[in-house]
Amino acid sequence: MPQINDNYLKLKAGYLFPEIGRRVTAFCQENPTAKVIRLGIGDVTEPLPPAIIDAMHKAVDEMARRETFRGYGPEQGYDFLRNAIVEHDFKARGCDIAADEVFVSDGSKCDTGNILDIFGLKNTVAMQDPVYPVYVDTNVMAGRTGAADAQGRYEGLTYLPCTAENDFTPSLPTKPVDLIYLCYPNNPTGAVATRETLTKWVDYAKQTGAVILFDAAYEAFITDPSLPHSIYEIPGARDVAIEFRSFSKNAGFTGTRCAFTVVPKTVMAKTADGAQQAIHPIWNRRHTTKFNGVSYIVQRGAEAVYSPAGKQQCADLVKFYLENAQILQHGLESVGISVYGGVNAPYIWLKTPDNKTSWDFFDYLLKNAHLVGTPGSGFGASGEGYFRLSAFNSRANVEEAVVRIKTLLGRLIA
Amino acid sequence: MPQINDNYLKLKAGYLFPEIGRRVTAFCQENPTAKVIRLGIGDVTEPLPPAIIDAMHKAVDEMARRETFRGYGPEQGYDFLRNAIVEHDFKARGCDIAADEVFVSDGSKCDTGNILDIFGLKNTVAMQDPVYPVYVDTNVMAGRTGAADAQGRYEGLTYLPCTAENDFTPSLPTKPVDLIYLCYPNNPTGAVATRETLTKWVDYAKQTGAVILFDAAYEAFITDPSLPHSIYEIPGARDVAIEFRSFSKNAGFTGTRCAFTVVPKTVMAKTADGAQQAIHPIWNRRHTTKFNGVSYIVQRGAEAVYSPAGKQQCADLVKFYLENAQILQHGLESVGISVYGGVNAPYIWLKTPDNKTSWDFFDYLLKNAHLVGTPGSGFGASGEGYFRLSAFNSRANVEEAVVRIKTLLGRLIA
Repeated sequence: MPQINDNYLKLKAGYLFPEIGRRVTAFCQENPTAKVIRLGIGDVTEPLPPAIIDAMHKAVDEMARRETFRGYGPEQGYDFLRNAIVEHDFKARGCDIAADEVFVSDGSKCDTGNILDIFGLKNTVAMQDPVYPVYVDTNVMAGRTGAADAQGRYEGLTYLPCTAENDFTPSLPTKPVDLIYLCYPNNPTGAVATRETLTKWVDYAKQTGAVILFDAAYEAFITDPSLPHSIYEIPGARDVAIEFRSFSKNAGFTGTRCAFTVVPKTVMAKTADGAQQAIHPIWNRRHTTKFNGVSYIVQRGAEAVYSPAGKQQCADLVKFYLENAQILQHGLESVGISVYGGVNAPYIWLKTPDNKTSWDFFDYLLKNAHLVGTPGSGFGASGEGYFRLSAFNSRANVEEAVVRIKTLLGRLIA
Repeated sequence: MPQINDNYLKLKAGYLFPEIGRRVTAFCQENPTAKVIRLGIGDVTEPLPPAIIDAMHKAVDEMARRETFRGYGPEQGYDFLRNAIVEHDFKARGCDIAADEVFVSDGSKCDTGNILDIFGLKNTVAMQDPVYPVYVDTNVMAGRTGAADAQGRYEGLTYLPCTAENDFTPSLPTKPVDLIYLCYPNNPTGAVATRETLTKWVDYAKQTGAVILFDAAYEAFITDPSLPHSIYEIPGARDVAIEFRSFSKNAGFTGTRCAFTVVPKTVMAKTADGAQQAIHPIWNRRHTTKFNGVSYIVQRGAEAVYSPAGKQQCADLVKFYLENAQILQHGLESVGISVYGGVNAPYIWLKTPDNKTSWDFFDYLLKNAHLVGTPGSGFGASGEGYFRLSAFNSRANVEEAVVRIKTLLGRLIA
């Protein structure tokens, strides 16, 4: 009988969002008339922009005719999309990235997990705490950790605490690490990285030989023109950083599925015998052997994100969600809650009132205001005592949520 | 500096199909007027059936309106698709499979590689030889093998030779193994498994505790009504087998991307301390943590494969490709080539004439007939001296290919 990969047994009970789903379902079954508003999972609510819809209809029609039908495409993505990405996301911002350094995929969630395949198991890994749970979970599955402690911290990982005390900007690791996850704009705290912050990390990686895994899934929400959108805006970054990008949040692709990962040819690792080895061909081998490309129809939709109409329509979407974030922020502040994020990010990160634990506040908010958020401790031990609200919802729901928050929390704090 | 996963360095120069692509590109650059016909990679050529096109247009329109827009779906696939799969692919054939045992994905290539994540590294693995190269390559990447020998056989894997001498039906392993890949209808040999053959494997797995990884991506091409389409048609199989299925070849989804994997709740493995552990929740954890579901639009397209119109249109597609296979088979036989497969599979497996090696015959056919096939040795050491032709092409190209084969090989053999 085969052995399972026992590392899976180290994982805590469930991925954060399924656990939230379980509690919400139970609540709704007990309270069938409650009008629950979900500001929990970061899922978009607005329809796909017209330019994208048009492009996908056209692509579907191409699939209906022999002359224009597409079978297997390049696993790495079609040139039309890779070229558009390079042109608009990188060259336009002065970043030196080539089309064959862009790997189109079906999601950043997959990529941030899959990238670990190409690294040895003995590498040490650092990550912000709190952070998107997939980084931790996929390292646990791969066998780079020991067991979790009572707060959920796994032995062997280097956690970089991000709290109000350090303005959600972590210090450099105190001991050397091989891989460093950075997520900016940050999920869940909404914190952003200045040019100085990213320069500090790039310089650190160059000095120590570390590789940065830079998750920029929320870059479209950056409103401050002084902030970098890509880590490749920092000199030297293409020697030390892999960047993850997604169409999920800027173009509403959470259910349509398209993302990409940038692996510059200049990022190096070493082999067991100490030789330098470029990461690009190793990732290319993984990508072509274990993946078969994104649907042609979806890639044509993603290409339309970069058309003049698509750009404007996506910018309008982002603006809409950021207005939601502002409404939430002001509502929370009006009842004395400490609020972070929400300006260059679609997430509001708040200090739980009354020193409630994150899950207690989750249950409290669900029971008394029929609002669903995400407990900060679900993103890591340093998220305890915090709570995330997502700006991805209709305006009416966001406004109604603020009314409920004011009623409930105004009373609690008073 | 991080260490790479050194196992990648054990891989032979390139995945088979990129190497073919390289040689064809070089030939075409040197011979720009040559009309090259590609019967190499198993990629479909005919457009998507109208029922699928209609369903995808409708789904695209749903994505355009807030009321019907879909964000993140269930990672495992929408119920509408999982239920259709169970109803038509399993219940209709008497197989006891539940909808929550079906995991919808973006491709069988991904799934046959990804499934390895959930098994321990010390498991022993057996596979047919020759066979779809992804099984071997992903085991090498995961670290379950030593180096390759001169014939390309990796130390530590158990190869089950399939040649004309044993009618392409492998013997049971002579030493115990934990995981057994079986591919039926077989890629590349086109061999099929009778009920008796599959019963032998299921009984063997039950007796020894092995788990069968059953790749049935080509089941739609089975024409003989006595042959099982799913391993779950065999009593006891749901205790020992995982099955991989795909929409790539029955419905033309190679560029549209949808597949599924069946993991019955009754398939067991063991933990390091010897306890029994069901595989289903472990795979579910992997799937939900490292994957975010297939595009809603594509899942609606896949659902249409099971509509009355979709079923008829897909059956017509399959019939068309099987007629191509017959034309190829008869053409080859008419010049005295030994031909296998092609009746219940879209692949023709032939013995190379004149005792040429597989790659020599590849170059010979490309240079002299401008035909691209796939060298048998690319599928494994026991494929040396064989060659695969794919029936996925237009009728005109297949007929032209037969003319060229007759001209060239008639001369060679005469």
